[in-house]
Amino acid sequence: MKQSQLAAKTLREAPKDEESINAILLTRGAFIDKLAAGIYTFLPLGLRVLRKIENIIREEMTAVGGQEILMPALQPKEIWDKTDRWSHFDALLKLKAFGDKDFALGPTHEEVVSPLAKKLVLSYKDLPLYLFQIQTKFRNEARAKSGLLRTREFSMKDLYSFHASQTDLDEYYDKLTKVYIKLFDRFGLGKKTYLTLAFGGTFSKYSHEFQTLCEAGEDTIHVCQNCANLAINDEIKKETPACPTCGGMGFTEHKAIEVGNIFKLGAKYSTPFDLKYKDQNGQEQTVLMACYGMGPSRVMGAIVEAHHDKQGIIWPENIAPFKVHLLVLGDDDKAEEEADAIYDKLNESAIEVLYDDRVLPAGAKFAEADLIGIPYRLVISEKTLAEDSVELKKRSEEKAELIKMSEIIEMLK
Amino acid sequence: MKQSQLAAKTLREAPKDEESINAILLTRGAFIDKLAAGIYTFLPLGLRVLRKIENIIREEMTAVGGQEILMPALQPKEIWDKTDRWSHFDALLKLKAFGDKDFALGPTHEEVVSPLAKKLVLSYKDLPLYLFQIQTKFRNEARAKSGLLRTREFSMKDLYSFHASQTDLDEYYDKLTKVYIKLFDRFGLGKKTYLTLAFGGTFSKYSHEFQTLCEAGEDTIHVCQNCANLAINDEIKKETPACPTCGGMGFTEHKAIEVGNIFKLGAKYSTPFDLKYKDQNGQEQTVLMACYGMGPSRVMGAIVEAHHDKQGIIWPENIAPFKVHLLVLGDDDKAEEEADAIYDKLNESAIEVLYDDRVLPAGAKFAEADLIGIPYRLVISEKTLAEDSVELKKRSEEKAELIKMSEIIEMLK
Repeated sequence: MKQSQLAAKTLREAPKDEESINAILLTRGAFIDKLAAGIYTFLPLGLRVLRKIENIIREEMTAVGGQEILMPALQPKEIWDKTDRWSHFDALLKLKAFGDKDFALGPTHEEVVSPLAKKLVLSYKDLPLYLFQIQTKFRNEARAKSGLLRTREFSMKDLYSFHASQTDLDEYYDKLTKVYIKLFDRFGLGKKTYLTLAFGGTFSKYSHEFQTLCEAGEDTIHVCQNCANLAINDEIKKETPACPTCGGMGFTEHKAIEVGNIFKLGAKYSTPFDLKYKDQNGQEQTVLMACYGMGPSRVMGAIVEAHHDKQGIIWPENIAPFKVHLLVLGDDDKAEEEADAIYDKLNESAIEVLYDDRVLPAGAKFAEADLIGIPYRLVISEKTLAEDSVELKKRSEEKAELIKMSEIIEMLK
Repeated sequence: MKQSQLAAKTLREAPKDEESINAILLTRGAFIDKLAAGIYTFLPLGLRVLRKIENIIREEMTAVGGQEILMPALQPKEIWDKTDRWSHFDALLKLKAFGDKDFALGPTHEEVVSPLAKKLVLSYKDLPLYLFQIQTKFRNEARAKSGLLRTREFSMKDLYSFHASQTDLDEYYDKLTKVYIKLFDRFGLGKKTYLTLAFGGTFSKYSHEFQTLCEAGEDTIHVCQNCANLAINDEIKKETPACPTCGGMGFTEHKAIEVGNIFKLGAKYSTPFDLKYKDQNGQEQTVLMACYGMGPSRVMGAIVEAHHDKQGIIWPENIAPFKVHLLVLGDDDKAEEEADAIYDKLNESAIEVLYDDRVLPAGAKFAEADLIGIPYRLVISEKTLAEDSVELKKRSEEKAELIKMSEIIEMLK
């Protein structure tokens, strides 16, 4: 993509109505644009990042047997009455529609997926079943001041698993816990993300959250000084003074953002929706459920909070909007010609490249490249061409080096 | 994908609450599941089809310079007040949220994209600009009885073009008209789809719709007997007795469904949002706009209406959920072994295959294959193996033929 064509106007100053690092950098870098508090448009650069995060999640969900579906945002009141959550679900967005009928805009989909599963699961042969979607969700959030970390409309991956036995549920839950850890590693959040014990609700002593350390986070977690990756949410710290894994009593307190959560639902939703299966003996049994949430747009915000410096964002390579940012400096015909040629070669080699082909001072181009945060910066100028070279610099490193023109494509492959 | 694992229970009978062919066949074939009137879940088979349609549209929009973004569904009342459409837009879904503020669920995005473009367009150098999204839209539809042809929540592609001059707008509009014709050809709707003159609104004598002949359609169009592809919408037929292209007076009347529409908006939205650019002389000029809509989920419904027989759906190859439906018949070890081997080879060759590996009577498998409508059916049984062959039948043809095992992969590539 040529930057002269890109729908993006970066900003030198932070927008006045944003406080969080992710909102400031993503807005300045022209990744997102705020329509209203907690409601954002994803611009071309931002949508590229969001889609990469979604595709990585999709790949991992498919690898553990997840089948992708797409459930509606509009959900009739009747299904929420069945679970008694119409009046009790915090932040449920409600509306009247279609001749004064009551609907909710789904913040979660247990009330939709449970009756759906009833049509798909007849006997033990249909279990286990894993259904997931990547879909737009809504929450009636009172506060929405943390950029992509807490929004009123957001992208969400929710997987629902259906099991014939508690053992099967527990095994899949453990498998998905490992997949979540792998996902946060792939997002470059592994070192800052803790499997965190939180309030369990009805069916288990604890539920599990994944919390990423982050100053803009709204949760407080207590990280066990002994266990590598375990933490305890502040909401249950008093009743859980010792680490359940190692018995350790030493903890450090941190602000954190919940980037994923997984729940053993048991029969909580299968009972009201009469979700049963016939076992090997023809006897009816209750299906057991678990659910696994992760918000791609929130993850995007958390990545920016974790990967930036004063100049801008430092995207991990696998989710960066482009792999290479090619800059041509000066108004030199020869440099432009060579830059055009490298741009073509990068495209031919399927290396994603943003090409700053605009006539702008070098300082402005460098500052914008640092702000946008593409992993590899390539600079071509009269000076580099005198050495038959291009300058290569990683966004995450200080040092730049000259690379021979003939070697650059192979090097970036 | 093995059919024994697929989240899909097909139905032998039509659902009682559906009238239209597309809803009946898509529900029976386990492509969609109705949550409420006009509100559907896309099951794994259905989502595969929807994504293929969306990706074909995305490819064509990108090819004409479209840059993909993602705008919010939630839109504050203030922007709709600016265009005076809050009270006048038919079927606008409204809700109170975030402390009693008024919001709409977007049925279209002129009110969002125009102020966004104001941030992206400063001078003539930023024009033309083409922004599009594929996003979930909402309409407060009173009636919703035509399956995917008229829903309350649906997938929509909307492209908005921004121009410095009317000439530039007109040229792009003509280009997009041709792209739309190409798209309907790619969807297998070309022969039944007519460029249709409709009520023009404020800025041009006519607007253009694309109408596909369809008994379940809610529009009536008059097709010129002389011009190959031109029609006139019933709403303007009286005032347009002769064909504006050839002057012909002979028309045939048909029921049809609007599968796309394109509008020259002119300054209708740029004026209230003060969307201007600086021209070469530094003078401020008003940006001119056009918009181009096409609903992937509605297109999916229209394809089913156009491509089916009594047994089920007949998907065009490029949007079918899978290219090949592999059936193993009988409970024969050797046949199963050979079918497994072919399944592996098809996957290795990246040929999308649904493998009916279940133990079911041949008749049931054939009926389900016809219902689901995958283009190529491969059958392996003791009988075909006696000839060292598999049986190949196209869904769209009656004739089946025996193909040597060794030749089948090359043939399907």
